[in-house]
Amino acid sequence: VEPRVSFITLGVTDLTRATRFYTEVLGLPLLPSSAEQVSFFAMGDLRLALYPRPLLAADAGMSDTSLQSVGPPAFSLSHNVDSIAAVDALLSHVDQHAEEFGCRRTRAGATADWGGYTGYFADPDGFLWEVAWNPNG
Amino acid sequence: VEPRVSFITLGVTDLTRATRFYTEVLGLPLLPSSAEQVSFFAMGDLRLALYPRPLLAADAGMSDTSLQSVGPPAFSLSHNVDSIAAVDALLSHVDQHAEEFGCRRTRAGATADWGGYTGYFADPDGFLWEVAWNPNG
Repeated sequence: VEPRVSFITLGVTDLTRATRFYTEVLGLPLLPSSAEQVSFFAMGDLRLALYPRPLLAADAGMSDTSLQSVGPPAFSLSHNVDSIAAVDALLSHVDQHAEEFGCRRTRAGATADWGGYTGYFADPDGFLWEVAWNPNG
Repeated sequence: VEPRVSFITLGVTDLTRATRFYTEVLGLPLLPSSAEQVSFFAMGDLRLALYPRPLLAADAGMSDTSLQSVGPPAFSLSHNVDSIAAVDALLSHVDQHAEEFGCRRTRAGATADWGGYTGYFADPDGFLWEVAWNPNG
């Protein structure tokens, strides 16, 4: 395996809501290659795809039920920002949209044992994002 | 949000088994920054981290129970290879280690509607990887 990830696909329950969250709340530009059943975003060299969960399940050879979880999936995506203030600002920004989108800050910003400053939010489907400031750049 | 993902962290139930799968079965080089409680791999500009699920839950401000799922998490990571044969070879390779690691091919290689050739496997914790050949490179 050549070490490369080309796509991260999140299986979402409401594609419209999830797409609005990533564009309107997080401000990510939707790629023109997006279609009715899939939303694409560029994250550097990586592509983030939002895809209805039943379609992801079918594509992966799984039943939608087997892909259903009782809680948030046990993984996180990390996003680095350039200051402690930016960590707090993004977490607050997401939390302000909790009512409309079902997103929320799950852990407020705090100093990490490795010297950085991090916090977490959950997107409308419960997918966890760590927001991190790294003193080493 | 500047569009960048710096880390993908998978919350695993058995760090030793998961680390052995990614090094021995997938052949990824373990980074020297890895420690007793975390394994790091470079995937291009991205870092893949394997981290015990209870520690990820605590870091994210969640209970481990809430992070527990009844099935595989509803997301997939995609890995591009350079031929149809390479898709089939990697899926077979993973499937041959099913007994030892609990990994398995979940969907055999097949032509996708966009013209590529893809299949899926689940890692020892059920995390889904799509293996894809893209005719457009």
